Amino acid sequence: MRICVINPNTSSAMTETIATAARSVARPDCEIVAVTSSMGPASIESHYDEALAVPGLLRAIAQNPDCDGYLIACFGDPGLDAAREVAAAPVLGIAEAAMHLAGPLGRSFSVVTTLHRTIGRATDLVDHYGFAGRCAGIHACDIPVLELETNPATAEILQKACREALHADGSDAIVLGCAGMADLAHRIGGEIGAPVVDGVAAGVGMLASMAAMGLRTGTASGEFGPPPAKGYSGILRDFEIGRPGG
Amino acid sequence: MRICVINPNTSSAMTETIATAARSVARPDCEIVAVTSSMGPASIESHYDEALAVPGLLRAIAQNPDCDGYLIACFGDPGLDAAREVAAAPVLGIAEAAMHLAGPLGRSFSVVTTLHRTIGRATDLVDHYGFAGRCAGIHACDIPVLELETNPATAEILQKACREALHADGSDAIVLGCAGMADLAHRIGGEIGAPVVDGVAAGVGMLASMAAMGLRTGTASGEFGPPPAKGYSGILRDFEIGRPGG
Amino acid sequence: MRICVINPNTSSAMTETIATAARSVARPDCEIVAVTSSMGPASIESHYDEALAVPGLLRAIAQNPDCDGYLIACFGDPGLDAAREVAAAPVLGIAEAAMHLAGPLGRSFSVVTTLHRTIGRATDLVDHYGFAGRCAGIHACDIPVLELETNPATAEILQKACREALHADGSDAIVLGCAGMADLAHRIGGEIGAPVVDGVAAGVGMLASMAAMGLRTGTASGEFGPPPAKGYSGILRDFEIGRPGG
Amino acid sequence: MRICVINPNTSSAMTETIATAARSVARPDCEIVAVTSSMGPASIESHYDEALAVPGLLRAIAQNPDCDGYLIACFGDPGLDAAREVAAAPVLGIAEAAMHLAGPLGRSFSVVTTLHRTIGRATDLVDHYGFAGRCAGIHACDIPVLELETNPATAEILQKACREALHADGSDAIVLGCAGMADLAHRIGGEIGAPVVDGVAAGVGMLASMAAMGLRTGTASGEFGPPPAKGYSGILRDFEIGRPGG
Amino acid sequence: MRICVINPNTSSAMTETIATAARSVARPDCEIVAVTSSMGPASIESHYDEALAVPGLLRAIAQNPDCDGYLIACFGDPGLDAAREVAAAPVLGIAEAAMHLAGPLGRSFSVVTTLHRTIGRATDLVDHYGFAGRCAGIHACDIPVLELETNPATAEILQKACREALHADGSDAIVLGCAGMADLAHRIGGEIGAPVVDGVAAGVGMLASMAAMGLRTGTASGEFGPPPAKGYSGILRDFEIGRPGG
Amino acid sequence: MRICVINPNTSSAMTETIATAARSVARPDCEIVAVTSSMGPASIESHYDEALAVPGLLRAIAQNPDCDGYLIACFGDPGLDAAREVAAAPVLGIAEAAMHLAGPLGRSFSVVTTLHRTIGRATDLVDHYGFAGRCAGIHACDIPVLELETNPATAEILQKACREALHADGSDAIVLGCAGMADLAHRIGGEIGAPVVDGVAAGVGMLASMAAMGLRTGTASGEFGPPPAKGYSGILRDFEIGRPGG
Repeated sequence: MRICVINPNTSSAMTETIATAARSVARPDCEIVAVTSSMGPASIESHYDEALAVPGLLRAIAQNPDCDGYLIACFGDPGLDAAREVAAAPVLGIAEAAMHLAGPLGRSFSVVTTLHRTIGRATDLVDHYGFAGRCAGIHACDIPVLELETNPATAEILQKACREALHADGSDAIVLGCAGMADLAHRIGGEIGAPVVDGVAAGVGMLASMAAMGLRTGTASGEFGPPPAKGYSGILRDFEIGRPGG
Repeated sequence: MRICVINPNTSSAMTETIATAARSVARPDCEIVAVTSSMGPASIESHYDEALAVPGLLRAIAQNPDCDGYLIACFGDPGLDAAREVAAAPVLGIAEAAMHLAGPLGRSFSVVTTLHRTIGRATDLVDHYGFAGRCAGIHACDIPVLELETNPATAEILQKACREALHADGSDAIVLGCAGMADLAHRIGGEIGAPVVDGVAAGVGMLASMAAMGLRTGTASGEFGPPPAKGYSGILRDFEIGRPGG
Repeated sequence: MRICVINPNTSSAMTETIATAARSVARPDCEIVAVTSSMGPASIESHYDEALAVPGLLRAIAQNPDCDGYLIACFGDPGLDAAREVAAAPVLGIAEAAMHLAGPLGRSFSVVTTLHRTIGRATDLVDHYGFAGRCAGIHACDIPVLELETNPATAEILQKACREALHADGSDAIVLGCAGMADLAHRIGGEIGAPVVDGVAAGVGMLASMAAMGLRTGTASGEFGPPPAKGYSGILRDFEIGRPGG
Repeated sequence: MRICVINPNTSSAMTETIATAARSVARPDCEIVAVTSSMGPASIESHYDEALAVPGLLRAIAQNPDCDGYLIACFGDPGLDAAREVAAAPVLGIAEAAMHLAGPLGRSFSVVTTLHRTIGRATDLVDHYGFAGRCAGIHACDIPVLELETNPATAEILQKACREALHADGSDAIVLGCAGMADLAHRIGGEIGAPVVDGVAAGVGMLASMAAMGLRTGTASGEFGPPPAKGYSGILRDFEIGRPGG
Repeated sequence: MRICVINPNTSSAMTETIATAARSVARPDCEIVAVTSSMGPASIESHYDEALAVPGLLRAIAQNPDCDGYLIACFGDPGLDAAREVAAAPVLGIAEAAMHLAGPLGRSFSVVTTLHRTIGRATDLVDHYGFAGRCAGIHACDIPVLELETNPATAEILQKACREALHADGSDAIVLGCAGMADLAHRIGGEIGAPVVDGVAAGVGMLASMAAMGLRTGTASGEFGPPPAKGYSGILRDFEIGRPGG
Repeated sequence: MRICVINPNTSSAMTETIATAARSVARPDCEIVAVTSSMGPASIESHYDEALAVPGLLRAIAQNPDCDGYLIACFGDPGLDAAREVAAAPVLGIAEAAMHLAGPLGRSFSVVTTLHRTIGRATDLVDHYGFAGRCAGIHACDIPVLELETNPATAEILQKACREALHADGSDAIVLGCAGMADLAHRIGGEIGAPVVDGVAAGVGMLASMAAMGLRTGTASGEFGPPPAKGYSGILRDFEIGRPGG
């Protein structure tokens, strides 16, 4: 089976981190296809960035058609519903995957994310996926996304934030709130003595399960069937479905 | 005061309908600036369309800077949070506005929208804005967005759907689920003997109130302050904030 | 259009404050009719006061029949559902109006009210209107209602309470929890750099929108139609509908 | 111990029905004091009636000071919070009592009330007391309150409505939605083979338990302590606390 | 009437405490049958203990068939739904009873339980019974169950924990979170000046009310009817219904 | 890695069905250890059966200590929290696993279970895991558990029930509500054209992901640490932790 992991920002170094994390947990019979977005923001740290990361994400799915699952490797889960309409295989966001795996690991989990301003989006996702009763708190470590890899203190700052979140919230598990933290989950988990869930690994596992079970997004209600055809114009004209390049 | 009403699809005929509805209820001292999106889908009938309508919406806001309020005239409220980060005045979506005005008009309201597949998005918005206890049902009249204006039976079909929704749900009011229905609210309300709320009119009223009260989006929590600056690339490079054209 | 703003306590000085706030934001074509209750408590600071303010409110509506909307200018929204049954135009409470306007101004709002003991009623209203997910906290400034106008430190104390609420709750906006604070909203908003919403101004704006759109309370479910006729006795005998004076 | 059961409408025949139901289940050592309101509506079938029943209820409590508990015998639980502030013993409404007793009798219960228009108020109480997950439906039998005793078909119509509610909702128990039905609970329960809960009997039992346990309304949060003293005027001047007659 | 109070752990000293508390509040015409479990854990302080207390509880019900109500005297309410299927009279758990009685005693209550690790189970019960909006906090006094009676400082430690809970949560009432605290409720209530609810007393009162009203668990939905017959094996073979001893 | 799949009833034929389903989707490097309970009910169709299946489940975990995950193969998820306290690896119930995998497969799912009387338990689990907003309905096919394998019409009846559930609920996916249906998921999914999720397969996939990521149940809050030691007596004396056989 082949799982396509899409980094919806344009930073290829971060794609490498994500791909390594994905491969380290994938089933032996699972190939990871890692893709970097070809347009839009260099990192995703605002609603504005997130909205403008979606075209690149949708383009990446269209350009990688023969996969058994697609993972959106940004904790805001940008474009998830749109991706479900156009992908021929199941699609998950890493926030969605991480929360679904963390829920059964204890009474409650805490989220530790990057910038304070992204807490609102994480709150919306917690509510949307039904984890309001399981998520005991959402915290920021205040490291910008692209500094996660360059800042030598990242692991230490993040570990401290995780430990404090666990204590302040009285929770049993941590969910890491950024794909750029994927390489640190296992190490921090060992250090703080609690399960630390990275959504990239969680998502690869869930998609592989879906593939093994022969499951894909349901379309019975009509919501997630292929979108109605229509004209697209301006710089987005190539997104018209059916057009060459669309 | 000036209120900017943005049609996030590229159909200028629909913008005319919206502008007329907005002007018919605006305060005498309120100018309506009606704008059609310059890129993306001709109509918004899927998550895919909605996601790809956001760049055009954000561009329209950037190109109309001197307004006292911005109204997103599509019932999916696309790009609302992103718009709040970049606009210098309050922003509302028409679903948000319609629900906030309809809530106090009775025990509960029903939504009547266009295609069945859009019910999911409307459900998400009902939950997100806190109206799960007020919204008694969401129904589709199964007229595609761009046929609303060309189909001679639109008013009759829509009126029938509203009457049936009121009866099936035991509700007191109707919320119309598409900006393209804005011209029909008053007439259908008279015919079915119940309040029928159009979000374009509702939104213009709320934004004018905010302007009169000197209110704009709060930024104290940090979520809705200006987005962090960063590189944008590909066909979206002009969305980089600070760039010429961005 | 004419909007009737009713102060359900018997203090006419407070009615003046309310009327001034209402007029300062009203549309140019909107006349404000300000009415003081003719019976009951001098101020409303308990469930007991609130219950006994309702007869005077209902009498005020009966005595001002030719209006396009009625606003109940007490943050407990006393008698709101009863008023909807008997008024020939839409009715709003100022808590209801303030919350509906504050919701779209950010991620969440905080309420700052008068006495600590009124927090319970505000909590009930937050839940009832669906804003449990938007209201981040309810705080008291501990100034009794009738001292708001006479205490020279009111503005300072209230500003401090608003600033602290914003900080403690991580919220984006403030809702003022008493009609007697109506004159301070704009000034405090400027001082703390956040939107501060007064329900009197918010209510006048929403009622004017409803009037412009031709909307009134829906009666389709039967709940808000005229009450069944019946005998009334004792000191409340004049509330019998149809009786002279009733 | 003495439990005061207050009929907040002015119909003494209904008070008799209520008193008989209360006495039939009371502990051997419990005296029932049954009181009819001295002012306001002859029956309570609207928000207007309910609001105007509260002064008479509060007067009845003031005039019966030496009791160990007070029961408000109207399914809208009018004036409950106000009564708690002024009564020196615990206060329950019959909707509150019936729901609290019915909850543990099965997976869910259905409410069967009088007029259709009262369903809204019952819905609010279900939500307010936390029984939204336990109440499977609210139904009207469409008999006006004062006809319950005079209409010879009442028992048959009500029994049919209860049976249908149980079936339609898939529930395990019935809650009767009017004090005027108190005499029919046991008989209908036997006929339909399901627990049928009357709030008068339920409330007497709960208040007797509270009395035996030495419990009364808590005042630690401040909300339910005695209301602040202040002037009352007009026909309600005698409600001023401390005044002769108040 | 006869109410059977079952201590689902095997400590008979604790059964005595429970029986005394039950008898002190029971109606004069109510006999209390107090039973100690014949198998399983000596005290219940974990999910493991609780699960393994259920067989003894079910055995106790089977061995005491002629009662008008059954009370499960452990705050985890172990085996409640199973007990309802097999008992010929209503069944309550003491957490269920305490919360249902405490709800109407104020705006909110706090729970004070034994060990910190039992807070999770209490949280589940609060949610399950619908009291999430009424329960302001759950606190541990960190005294193991069987030390409640032997530790001379129990009353003092528990009183301190109750007082602090009331203050920290801003609540109006306390619910004691262990049957072993039943003898202390009245005394602590007097000392802290707030209603303190013991579930044993609350449960006896509710069951007596149900008995007086002729109510028993409803079976209309099918969930709580007698369980389907089938084979049981191993050390649990005697639990086969219909078998001698089963 | 080794995943232990426990059938908590005593029917070994059903264990075979479960083991086959588990192996058909497991990672190539994952060994499935299938265990049948050694005591208790032959099938689980009531709260009584479920409660009495827990001792056998806990015994099975104790007797299979060297595994990387434990799956409770009964849709009531019996003994889940107790199992988490004593197992040295993560534990999932199949209802929990199925719902967590089905959530991301569409807007909502429907559950199709065996007997009508088990709908209550499924409802509790839906609420407990946070899927109240995702689960559109719970339906019974009315085939007893042990007839699933012997009744030649099972596949046809179940397929019909799934198709009808999808239509009645407007849902996108089906969750099968019994471990005994595990062999039918893939086939029925193909026939009805919608994702059909079996909890056995889902659980094996989630546990394997947890194992690959090095995750186990969190104990930071204290709830899921090892239970306090204490005496056990009667036929359950061997469950005393630390005893030989315990």
